[in-house]
Amino acid sequence: MKTVGYFNGKIGELDELYIPFNERTHYFGDGVYDATSAGNHVPFAMQDHIDRFYNSAKLVDIDVGMAKEELTELICSLTKKLDSPQSQVYWQVTRGTAMRNHVFPDVHSNLWIMIRPFPRVNLDRKESAITYPDRRFFYCNVKTLNLMPNCLAAEAAKKAGCDEAIFYREPALLAGVSADSPFILEEGGKLKGRVTECAHSNVHILKDGVFQTAPLDNLILPGIARKHLIAKCRELGVPVSETPFSVEEMYNADEVMVSSASTFGISLKSIDGRPVGGKAQDLLKKIQIAVMDEFDAETGK
Amino acid sequence: MKTVGYFNGKIGELDELYIPFNERTHYFGDGVYDATSAGNHVPFAMQDHIDRFYNSAKLVDIDVGMAKEELTELICSLTKKLDSPQSQVYWQVTRGTAMRNHVFPDVHSNLWIMIRPFPRVNLDRKESAITYPDRRFFYCNVKTLNLMPNCLAAEAAKKAGCDEAIFYREPALLAGVSADSPFILEEGGKLKGRVTECAHSNVHILKDGVFQTAPLDNLILPGIARKHLIAKCRELGVPVSETPFSVEEMYNADEVMVSSASTFGISLKSIDGRPVGGKAQDLLKKIQIAVMDEFDAETGK
Repeated sequence: MKTVGYFNGKIGELDELYIPFNERTHYFGDGVYDATSAGNHVPFAMQDHIDRFYNSAKLVDIDVGMAKEELTELICSLTKKLDSPQSQVYWQVTRGTAMRNHVFPDVHSNLWIMIRPFPRVNLDRKESAITYPDRRFFYCNVKTLNLMPNCLAAEAAKKAGCDEAIFYREPALLAGVSADSPFILEEGGKLKGRVTECAHSNVHILKDGVFQTAPLDNLILPGIARKHLIAKCRELGVPVSETPFSVEEMYNADEVMVSSASTFGISLKSIDGRPVGGKAQDLLKKIQIAVMDEFDAETGK
Repeated sequence: MKTVGYFNGKIGELDELYIPFNERTHYFGDGVYDATSAGNHVPFAMQDHIDRFYNSAKLVDIDVGMAKEELTELICSLTKKLDSPQSQVYWQVTRGTAMRNHVFPDVHSNLWIMIRPFPRVNLDRKESAITYPDRRFFYCNVKTLNLMPNCLAAEAAKKAGCDEAIFYREPALLAGVSADSPFILEEGGKLKGRVTECAHSNVHILKDGVFQTAPLDNLILPGIARKHLIAKCRELGVPVSETPFSVEEMYNADEVMVSSASTFGISLKSIDGRPVGGKAQDLLKKIQIAVMDEFDAETGK
């Protein structure tokens, strides 16, 4: 198949499948999702993604309606149906189909799977980004389908000729953090916000040999690629610091990396039009090789 | 017809219509909506709702793809197709159908309309509510389809045996407001948040003869029912104050009212299990009669 779509047991090309009008994504975006990359028809790090998916569903009280093992097997078998060995493997569960009403309906949830060809990332390529105010909700640890602010940010990046938008929380919007917190830097009288994550990635910096990334809280998604980057750093003896950093610290980092299930740990060459990174290229390369080697080993390149 | 559904020109009962798999609501909730009540097959306050709808669409850069007059006529004509003269009239525009990608696709938007029987509100009835922490995004002035937090709050209210959930922003989450702002009351050492709106309504209080409601900013939806309540108060000589109030002030108000396109200005009898209101019943009734009279005059009861 050129693409693979799945909705509650029905399988077809994506442009052949249709969804009932009263599906709750239509009114509320009421669902959660997860996604990974596949190489050689094998989805990467499925256990991690499946665990996160069930956790997202639990956090918003949606019953996936299927055991973890069964869903894993279903997704893996559909990944084999795609012509392309390299793919993006995406799935979601939504609260069901019912007349519009905010309260939860007494119906079964809907399970969706979407698989399509996706090129392998080239980590030699360097990307560019903009910064964008993070005015999203405080459920960012849940991988929900409420992604309009992410779309607005991604579009702003594209309009600026860039690949990603890096969110920063403005000081007054920080959850539980007072204005004299150490990671809100005052600069020329102007408070600088802290970096959280990107429109569709996590973001990390290398500085003085340390891999630094925002801590896991309700401001960021617990990225699986982030988790694997941290594990590889530890194996390589690179110190890891899960502490917030500011926009200014990011501008001045030795390297800036963004990671997602499709980008693994690509580095940035510019942010807001300023050149960034390029000051710890050997360390960057070592980490990038480690995460790609893990992907290749698991998917059997 | 028992229900009326519309999707890009196709008309049918809601359970007969289907939506393409790659519609962007499925991945991002990428759309905006509006809704009103109809009496006697006539949708109420259409100019207000249509104006707000086009404003929401503009704020997130979606082209409705149709002139205001044409859309108004379409909605009004579909409202006449419903068997029931009393209805909820709902419509939305979404950014279109395309392979999943956060950036905006180069496709036309999708227009959806949903009309269904809906009982006329009984303003003699009093409702109950809970308070719920407002951890939503800072785009609440836009009527988007990113409503999962609203669903979670509404469900919490239902589980507590209540009709609505009243959101309050926790002090640290307040946009641009410092902790010593006058409307964050310290009470027994505990900071109290400010009230914003409800899961599917605005909320207002009557205190010492004044109608008080949260100001229009990015924390609340500019409710049409709210606007009409304010206009009627002014006609009746009731002073209006568009200033924030705390949870505590709401508990102690003379009356608490919630308003939406379907509830107009219903009053509350309890919040978080405490009795509220009942101390300005004549004023409450005067305002309620004024807004219902306006509805009846326009829809030709």
